[in-house]
Amino acid sequence: MTTIAFIGLGNMGGPMAANLVKAGHTVQGFDLMPENLALAADYGITTMRDARSALEGAEVVVTMLPAGKHVLSVYEEITPWVASGALMIDCSTIDVESARKAHDIASRHGLLSIDAPVSGGTGGAAAGTLTFMAGGSTDSYSKAEPILQPMAGKIVHCGDPGAGQAAKICNNMILGISMIGVAEAFVLAEKLGLSHQSLFDVASTSSGQCWSLTTYCPVPGPVPNSPANRDYRPGFAAALMLKDLKLSQEAAQAAGAVTPLGAEATQLYALFNALGNGGTDFSGIIQFLRGKGE
Amino acid sequence: MTTIAFIGLGNMGGPMAANLVKAGHTVQGFDLMPENLALAADYGITTMRDARSALEGAEVVVTMLPAGKHVLSVYEEITPWVASGALMIDCSTIDVESARKAHDIASRHGLLSIDAPVSGGTGGAAAGTLTFMAGGSTDSYSKAEPILQPMAGKIVHCGDPGAGQAAKICNNMILGISMIGVAEAFVLAEKLGLSHQSLFDVASTSSGQCWSLTTYCPVPGPVPNSPANRDYRPGFAAALMLKDLKLSQEAAQAAGAVTPLGAEATQLYALFNALGNGGTDFSGIIQFLRGKGE
Amino acid sequence: MTTIAFIGLGNMGGPMAANLVKAGHTVQGFDLMPENLALAADYGITTMRDARSALEGAEVVVTMLPAGKHVLSVYEEITPWVASGALMIDCSTIDVESARKAHDIASRHGLLSIDAPVSGGTGGAAAGTLTFMAGGSTDSYSKAEPILQPMAGKIVHCGDPGAGQAAKICNNMILGISMIGVAEAFVLAEKLGLSHQSLFDVASTSSGQCWSLTTYCPVPGPVPNSPANRDYRPGFAAALMLKDLKLSQEAAQAAGAVTPLGAEATQLYALFNALGNGGTDFSGIIQFLRGKGE
Amino acid sequence: MTTIAFIGLGNMGGPMAANLVKAGHTVQGFDLMPENLALAADYGITTMRDARSALEGAEVVVTMLPAGKHVLSVYEEITPWVASGALMIDCSTIDVESARKAHDIASRHGLLSIDAPVSGGTGGAAAGTLTFMAGGSTDSYSKAEPILQPMAGKIVHCGDPGAGQAAKICNNMILGISMIGVAEAFVLAEKLGLSHQSLFDVASTSSGQCWSLTTYCPVPGPVPNSPANRDYRPGFAAALMLKDLKLSQEAAQAAGAVTPLGAEATQLYALFNALGNGGTDFSGIIQFLRGKGE
Repeated sequence: MTTIAFIGLGNMGGPMAANLVKAGHTVQGFDLMPENLALAADYGITTMRDARSALEGAEVVVTMLPAGKHVLSVYEEITPWVASGALMIDCSTIDVESARKAHDIASRHGLLSIDAPVSGGTGGAAAGTLTFMAGGSTDSYSKAEPILQPMAGKIVHCGDPGAGQAAKICNNMILGISMIGVAEAFVLAEKLGLSHQSLFDVASTSSGQCWSLTTYCPVPGPVPNSPANRDYRPGFAAALMLKDLKLSQEAAQAAGAVTPLGAEATQLYALFNALGNGGTDFSGIIQFLRGKGE
Repeated sequence: MTTIAFIGLGNMGGPMAANLVKAGHTVQGFDLMPENLALAADYGITTMRDARSALEGAEVVVTMLPAGKHVLSVYEEITPWVASGALMIDCSTIDVESARKAHDIASRHGLLSIDAPVSGGTGGAAAGTLTFMAGGSTDSYSKAEPILQPMAGKIVHCGDPGAGQAAKICNNMILGISMIGVAEAFVLAEKLGLSHQSLFDVASTSSGQCWSLTTYCPVPGPVPNSPANRDYRPGFAAALMLKDLKLSQEAAQAAGAVTPLGAEATQLYALFNALGNGGTDFSGIIQFLRGKGE
Repeated sequence: MTTIAFIGLGNMGGPMAANLVKAGHTVQGFDLMPENLALAADYGITTMRDARSALEGAEVVVTMLPAGKHVLSVYEEITPWVASGALMIDCSTIDVESARKAHDIASRHGLLSIDAPVSGGTGGAAAGTLTFMAGGSTDSYSKAEPILQPMAGKIVHCGDPGAGQAAKICNNMILGISMIGVAEAFVLAEKLGLSHQSLFDVASTSSGQCWSLTTYCPVPGPVPNSPANRDYRPGFAAALMLKDLKLSQEAAQAAGAVTPLGAEATQLYALFNALGNGGTDFSGIIQFLRGKGE
Repeated sequence: MTTIAFIGLGNMGGPMAANLVKAGHTVQGFDLMPENLALAADYGITTMRDARSALEGAEVVVTMLPAGKHVLSVYEEITPWVASGALMIDCSTIDVESARKAHDIASRHGLLSIDAPVSGGTGGAAAGTLTFMAGGSTDSYSKAEPILQPMAGKIVHCGDPGAGQAAKICNNMILGISMIGVAEAFVLAEKLGLSHQSLFDVASTSSGQCWSLTTYCPVPGPVPNSPANRDYRPGFAAALMLKDLKLSQEAAQAAGAVTPLGAEATQLYALFNALGNGGTDFSGIIQFLRGKGE
């Protein structure tokens, strides 16, 4: 088995690292927050006093951090001390530009590297059923694949460095747009006296079909386990959807892509968040479209 | 079998009526355009010199017309002459308000009535695999259902008078929005160096999945028979998508529903059409987002 | 002096009719609401028991009603009884299509007619300083002009029948868009640590200058008498701005004009209204952009 | 008089430096492009072989560069060699964050500094009538003011470091939004049969009044010297408007401001540019709204 340094043991990182332990790996973990370290210890993770000591004998380093600037500063700090030839796996969801910089830092120190953001939320992290979208060389990917396995339901090699992040923001931009579109359609149906179930029956079996409708329906009833049935408790919080949409717009502006609905969806989630709904499931935006502030 | 008057024998109405003939019904057809009547005759439809004479002994009247004003004027013209207790089926895609007025005219003359717009395009009309979204009383629906059968792949009773039109515009509003969203995602992926196939592989199996991506993919390759593979020949023309989006916005304004992405999608298809692309498949809007005028 | 029938004596119509009385005209008024009639009597208006009796000897008929359908039903009701050659003046703000129908009804009965919507609000109505935007023939306009004078600060002949309504919705579409634009700029300035006064000083004297900024500033301070200085009490209520924006979008859809910012502004005012702010001044939308629901 | 180092002698910088020479200052200039240096020499600017040699005895350093990254790299390169207590004036239009970093670099080397982006275009640069929006300490501002004078029609001290850039992007965001709003209103007027002049007469004297209408009218006629009268030759090119709108959206995203119309205007100018109109005056977007690709 492999010795793995795992940096960032929060709501996502903690359970992910726990699945690596279950799979028999030796996991040396670090997090800035003592309570996260305490939880990690309960998972059987060997907790360390700082990032650098977590590297002791590690062939793989996994990072799960909030934003690009954290990933870059950790990479700057630790890469000089990582055993050459080792593999850096960054599972954070960050901007494409920072992801590519992280790859550059790694290769400057003779390390393999891969960006591997996930979807599936805290539920998928605990169950080990996350989808990983990976970007990096074939060598890096083939070395990463067996390590990701115990945390994954699905792993896709999307292409070169940064391609994992690119795939995630493109996918989530579609998600944010289609969720608002579905919510608008239900609100319009309500005003036209068309029942939720009738719209669901028609759209779910024709050209309006989408994951936001058939798996994550924003009204209670048609899909019994969607957050709408539990008063929009996440699930996937609106604040996280806004974060991903902003990443998509940053990337679009930097790359010169025109994304009018992506831009509009970003503004609508920004308004929804500004009204104090950041902790609500992102499908709760239907309430906002109905004119409910909080 | 039944004697059916069929008014409006264009690209959609002609083949639909032909399927009623195949099913053994007697179809008495009328259309204002001589060439449509000529084609209808070849289908075995008994062509008549005007709408009123097509009613001779008809127990069912089917209309397939361009817009609400045509349906209302035909209903005003013919309903006094339709045998009482007969069934009026309007398959046109029109605004909800006009659809309800048409029902009122019919009931004023003691007629059963149903609004039953279709999706599936000219292909579905010829193959007899259209989806019908029906609105009207249970009596009207149960009488209409066997008549629609030979033209249908699927029939949904959506609710009261107008519910068929409501379901169609709600579904197509989702469709227009999700298609633009998917197109924006592919354009962004291109700029980020992510391949079409990689984005398709990720999104088609996760939360970005939608009919616009997995059945009607706006880039060539991933879905071999989508219009993108034949230079965006329709399929479903952008001009028709614009028509349906405008109906959704009319209904939203009249009913007081807030539909920001629906409004934005309508404007984008209006711009795409204004640039001379009305005859292009609606998935061709990806070209516009890439900055190709015509 | 002239005998004038005045139909619709609400917040706007009442004080307008009062100014006609002050100017020495004989005004025979009618309104469906008794309290409006009572107020009108105090203004010296001869109140009548119905619209038709208000026509007694009238050479001019003025209407001030909520929407197109009211204007058309009143015109259908009274025009047969108006003295031929008399002048119909409709001061309501309604859709262009209905306005043109009203002109048609009038001319069918040999009457001159003009559409003359106003801006200036209840304040301008009381002070007799309204701006009138008039559409109709030169004959109709030259006959209307002296009648409008005592109610007007300014009168513009905009063109043929309907041109008055067209001018008003085009102007108010610019107004709604520029107000949101100015509000967004102040919100951005706040987040960037730029003072309201500094942004005002720069923009009011350069290319960002607009009436929404320099006459009706949506933040307190720079323009002492703007509604922002009295907690956004109207002024011009958000519900009325939404009404005018919806008229602009109806007209744009019917006429085939592309108005993306007009559509977006309409959606934002619809959201603002849906959150319960219809009675707030329209400049109060800055609160909504800051994330204040009510 | 003062010895001034002037770095960046392009379309804007060249004529600006020339006005400093006319005012009697000694100007030592540098630009990476030989042709710009040649032109500068004709203006009486002492041209130098590199940025550093331009600093020889300079009490003031003016920079006029394309983007934040250029300003920061030049500041990193030259500030160590600038005489302590000297004043750094950056006239480039760049992002607020980079502007603040430039101030930090300057103060780290004991230099006064001010961000002073301009509006007024190449015409204003040549005529010495630019508007300067300045951000920085009172000391820096009072020292900068007399230096800016010969290049300026107007100088506003907007506040602390970065406030000049903030004021410019807030102003230009209003400008971009109001120009599209005015263009949409003219397009709607055309479809409604309302003449350009009539809309101008109404809106220019009421609540629709804005600089985009009354000084820079996007249709030929009402304002004889606006770019619309010379086939939309800039003036202010659409590519530059897009640059400023992107800066506003970057700042809004970073600062957490909600700017839905700013976002939409950015997308529309991005589409207009993508269609090959970057060199057209920004008021030419009215052609795009009318459905003219190029």
